[in-house]
Formats: sequence, structure tokens, C-alpha cells
Amino acid sequence: MSDLDPLLHSRCEWLRGEGEASDIVMSSRMRLARNIAGFLFTHHLAKDESEELIDLAESAVKKAALFKEGFFFEQKDLSSLDKQFLLERHLISHEHASAKQDMAVCLSRDEVASVMILEEDHLRIQVLQSGFNLRGAWELIDRLDSELAGHMAYAYHPTLGFLTACPTNVGTGLRASCMLHLPALVMTKQINKVLQALQKLNLAARGMYGEGTQPSGNFFQFSNQMTLGVNEAEIIESLERVIRQIIQNEKEAREILQTKKKDKLEDQIWRALGALKAARFISSRETTTHLSLVRLGVDLGVIQGLSAAKLNELFIMIQPSHLQKCSNRALSSTDRDYERAAFLRRELKSVELL
Amino acid sequence: MSDLDPLLHSRCEWLRGEGEASDIVMSSRMRLARNIAGFLFTHHLAKDESEELIDLAESAVKKAALFKEGFFFEQKDLSSLDKQFLLERHLISHEHASAKQDMAVCLSRDEVASVMILEEDHLRIQVLQSGFNLRGAWELIDRLDSELAGHMAYAYHPTLGFLTACPTNVGTGLRASCMLHLPALVMTKQINKVLQALQKLNLAARGMYGEGTQPSGNFFQFSNQMTLGVNEAEIIESLERVIRQIIQNEKEAREILQTKKKDKLEDQIWRALGALKAARFISSRETTTHLSLVRLGVDLGVIQGLSAAKLNELFIMIQPSHLQKCSNRALSSTDRDYERAAFLRRELKSVELL
Repeated sequence: MSDLDPLLHSRCEWLRGEGEASDIVMSSRMRLARNIAGFLFTHHLAKDESEELIDLAESAVKKAALFKEGFFFEQKDLSSLDKQFLLERHLISHEHASAKQDMAVCLSRDEVASVMILEEDHLRIQVLQSGFNLRGAWELIDRLDSELAGHMAYAYHPTLGFLTACPTNVGTGLRASCMLHLPALVMTKQINKVLQALQKLNLAARGMYGEGTQPSGNFFQFSNQMTLGVNEAEIIESLERVIRQIIQNEKEAREILQTKKKDKLEDQIWRALGALKAARFISSRETTTHLSLVRLGVDLGVIQGLSAAKLNELFIMIQPSHLQKCSNRALSSTDRDYERAAFLRRELKSVELL
Repeated sequence: MSDLDPLLHSRCEWLRGEGEASDIVMSSRMRLARNIAGFLFTHHLAKDESEELIDLAESAVKKAALFKEGFFFEQKDLSSLDKQFLLERHLISHEHASAKQDMAVCLSRDEVASVMILEEDHLRIQVLQSGFNLRGAWELIDRLDSELAGHMAYAYHPTLGFLTACPTNVGTGLRASCMLHLPALVMTKQINKVLQALQKLNLAARGMYGEGTQPSGNFFQFSNQMTLGVNEAEIIESLERVIRQIIQNEKEAREILQTKKKDKLEDQIWRALGALKAARFISSRETTTHLSLVRLGVDLGVIQGLSAAKLNELFIMIQPSHLQKCSNRALSSTDRDYERAAFLRRELKSVELL
């Protein structure tokens, strides 16, 4: 277990671009909120209690099979750039990244599993899977959760279930989500209908970086809101059913675009690629918007010679802290826009504007 | 003398991209308004008088040395597409192109000289020269004017000079103009100061296609307003002096951009080239805007492997009627945007986005 450099050039699980419906579902995610019995909730812990809890959690997590040869970092090991880096890879949350108090994080070697220690809850266990694979993610996280429970006593109430710092997580403590790429529903202006329907079903829609982030680049993260009064299987099954419907809607919208608006669509796709290949300065927001269109172009067979996996890698590498890690130095916002443009031109050099 | 096809693939004089200061001055133009004694002005002519005048003018013009092996067209020879085509090549005026009554036009083989017959005046004699060459244009047009005067009696008043249909042309009947490409003055927001100063000097600023057109793509046509009470040499000298000053201003503005805003400038230049290489549909206005930036990029040595002459050719070939002549069919506006984009991609294929 060393610093973060080994992660820089490995591929994030959530961007592997494989698995069911991976042209629409980027990734599936499960997280469990858990607290350790006998301790106050995170925000009420004294310094020495935090340290004791981290030690306890660390020793438990390190025993789990998934974390063999994994990484373990404490607050003191992580610069703010490191935390931003982990956030960009979806391995820690915004809240965890900005924590002032003690915190720690444990990552499996392949970035499939992570445990945030002293986030809002003592433990936030997460499993990511490429593509549409909620069941696979559930199997992994359930096994991991059982393993951890063998080494720690969870705060559990016989009627309420798992106790959590925020009442919205009480019960299963489970949040299941999928990140979807829905350019056609956005372009055909059907996305608002979808979002409204989701609200009625008590599902939340968020941006690429979870709670508190706006959808951008046509990426949407859909998750369950309810954790109490339903069991895990019901949560997963109901989310799965809805996601399957949205995949169908997106597919239909793509077909409509390809038949009725083919010309305009291809114009947008090629122009997006042109901008990425030409720009000398480019923000991450503009890049994400263009990459989304290029991704659609690849999915529809308009653009050749570029794989979904390669494109997904670009999505992550153009993020601010990834650029800085690659350059081995802190970069101002303007410098980042410059480095990002240079990186994109290099990476897309061989993709031709036909 | 046949139809217009031979012109299609020859290079317009005004876009040859040669001569003094041709990185800033696209072309220099002279025109003389002349009327034939013994006839009413154009708009008052009866049908048979028009025909008589055209015959008279035709036989005079065809005797001139410049029109040997030239082209002569009458209203009946020209479709509205043909007229638009001649307009795009700056060989006839908007007014002449939209004439309902009889009209005719005579062109020299190299497109340097043209005579519009039955425009607002009986004769509008024009000479175009590439680059900054008002004197060269004057010498040619003066010689041509003298030749024509040997075969026709001009309407001339000993005190007022040449008589014209509109009082603003009485006297010399001379309009001298230069078309300038001033991207740096536009980008540094100094162009309005320049335009205000010109107004005080009684010079007019117009768009690429003369009277009634707005400047676009950073192209400005500057011309004298006064024709009465000054002689030809004074008109030319005063316009020359002002143009020389504007060239200097533009050069300074380019230097400022290259030193203080180099990054932003290069970003704009490459993105413009990227859009031209990528688009599937593109309007002539958008194309002109991008080509203007690409032209600046070529002039500043940012873009390699593209000549000014080649770029100038693109400026003309992307115009609506040129596209239609090339495709050998009438094209809707959407079809033109499609053909224009395809043409640009083909022509710019070898120019690399570095």
C-alpha cells in the first residue's frame, strides 16, 4: 500500500465500457451505510475515538478478500489533490473529500470496491461494476458486508434495521444506482418526462459526481431514495425495472434521431470531434459535452477507429486532478484548459475527420 | 463568347491573393459611371431605345483591347443563377443582377475588366486588381474609358463633368475602393474607431458585396463618396493614404494579438479550421467567419500547408451559386449547406490540425 500513482494509469471500473447495455449504462453502483456499535456517529466523535475507530475499521477491512493488495489511506496520507483524484474516480464522495476531521479510505486493487471510513457514517462500503450489473454489484457488496460484519459489530436495530447518521439511510443502508448516458433522450427533449416519472417512483436523478452535482454531458445517475420498509432485493429489482425502461426509451430515441434527424445528428457528432481535435484551450465541461456526442457517434457507428473503452478513459483523464497528476505539478485553471486540449489532441490524433 | 462555365474554374482577379499588402488588402477596384449622349437615363428608356443602346455599347466595348476574347451576355442569355454567379464574382452589381428590364454585361477573359450595360447608368465600367493597387486599376480603367469614348459620345457637361443618373456620381463618375481583411482590428475592438474616422473623411465602409451589404467575416470595402469638385488623382491619392493608414493599424493590431493574446488567438484559429474540417452542414456566413480566422492563421504562420490563393478560392467557391454551378443543379438552402460542408472537407483534407 503506497501512494496513488499506480491508480493513475489503470482503468476505473466504472469506465471499463463492458457488460450489459454498456452503450447506455456506464456503470452500476451499490453502497451500504454502516456504523459500528458502541461509537457515536462520525460528527460527534472525539479525536481519540476517531483514531480508535479508524484502527478498528482498518484491521477489519484489510482482512477482507477484496482488499488483498489493495490501498489504505488516512487523512494525513492524502493531499487535497489526492482526494480530488479519488473523487474523480468515484472512489470517495464529495463529503469525504472535503472532510476536515479524521478520515480514511480503503480501495481494492482493481477499484471495484472501496470503503470510506468516517464519512457521514462510520463506513460507506461501495462496489462499482461496469455496464448494467446491479445484481453482480449486489453479490459482491453483500459478501463483503458479511465478511466485515465478522470483524465488527454493526449498529443494528431489530425493527429499524441498520442505524445511520441520516434517517434517510436507516434500514437497509443501501443505495443502488446506475450511471446512464442519455444523449438521445436529451436531444429529443424527452428527458424531462423521464425525470418527472422517476420522481413519482421515488427515484433520484443526479449528475455524474453524485449528490449535489448537476447532470452534464448527458450523464445521469439514477438511484433509489427509500431504504426503510423495503428489503434489498426489492430495491434492486425496482431500480432494475426502471433502468431497463429508460434503456429502452434511449434506444428508441436513438433510432428516431438516426432515421429522422440523421443529418443534423452527424453534423453535431463530427463538429464535437472537430472541436476536440482542434482546440488549444478547453474546459472540462465543454470537453464532457463533446465527448458525450463523440461517444454517441461511436455507439452509432458514425465514428470509426475509436473504442468505447478508450473514450471512457478520456472522460476520466481530462478531469482537473488527473491532468495535474499526469503533469506532476499544480496547474491553474487556464493551464489545465491548455493541458487538457493538448492531451485530447494527442489522444485523438489518429481518429480521422472523414 | 459562350456561357459562363469557363469562368467557374478560373481564378477571380479580386481573389488572386497577389500584389502589395495582399495579406490585408484583398483587392482594389475602380468603376466609372458613364452615360451615352442623346439617350434618356436607363430607367426612362423605352424598350426599343434600350435595345438600340445595348447594340451601340456592345459594338463599342467589343472593340476595346481588354475585351478581346471576352464574354458578352444579354439579359436573355442569363438565368437568375448566372446573374447570382456573376455577382458573387464581383463582376456585376446587386442592382444589375436584379434588373427586370434589358441589361447586358461584357467581361474580359481574365475578369479584370467588366462593363455593365443599363445598370443605374448606361455604362458602369469596372476594373479589379488583386492586392493594394489603386494606381494599376486606374491606369487600366482610364485607358479603357478613353478607348470607349472613341466609339461613343458620353453625356458630359463642361462645368459638372460626366452626367449620371444619381447626383452622387456626377463629376468624375469614379468610385475607387479597396476590400480589406481586418480580423485583428475587429478582435481588438478598434474597428469602430476606424469606421468613425472614415465617416469624417467622407469615405464609405461596406461589406464584401458592396452597397447595401453588411461587413461579414471581417471583410470591409472602403470607397470614396465624393465624385464632384475633385479630380481622379485626388480621389485615388486620398483613398490610398487612408488605406495605407488602416493597413498599418491592422498590422499593429495583429502584433498585439500575437504578443498579448497569442494563446486565445491560436485557439480561435485552430477551432475555426476544426469546424471547417468537421461540419456536415455549414452556412456561407459561418464559413466566411471561419475562413477569415483561418486566413489570419495562414498570414501569421500558425497554419501551414495552405496558401492564401487557395483560401481565397474557397471564399468564392462556397458561395451559393458557385456551389450550384459545380453541382450542375439547383440546390435548396439545406442542400447547399450540405454540399458546402462536403466541399470544404475535401479541399481542407490535407491541412492538418497540429
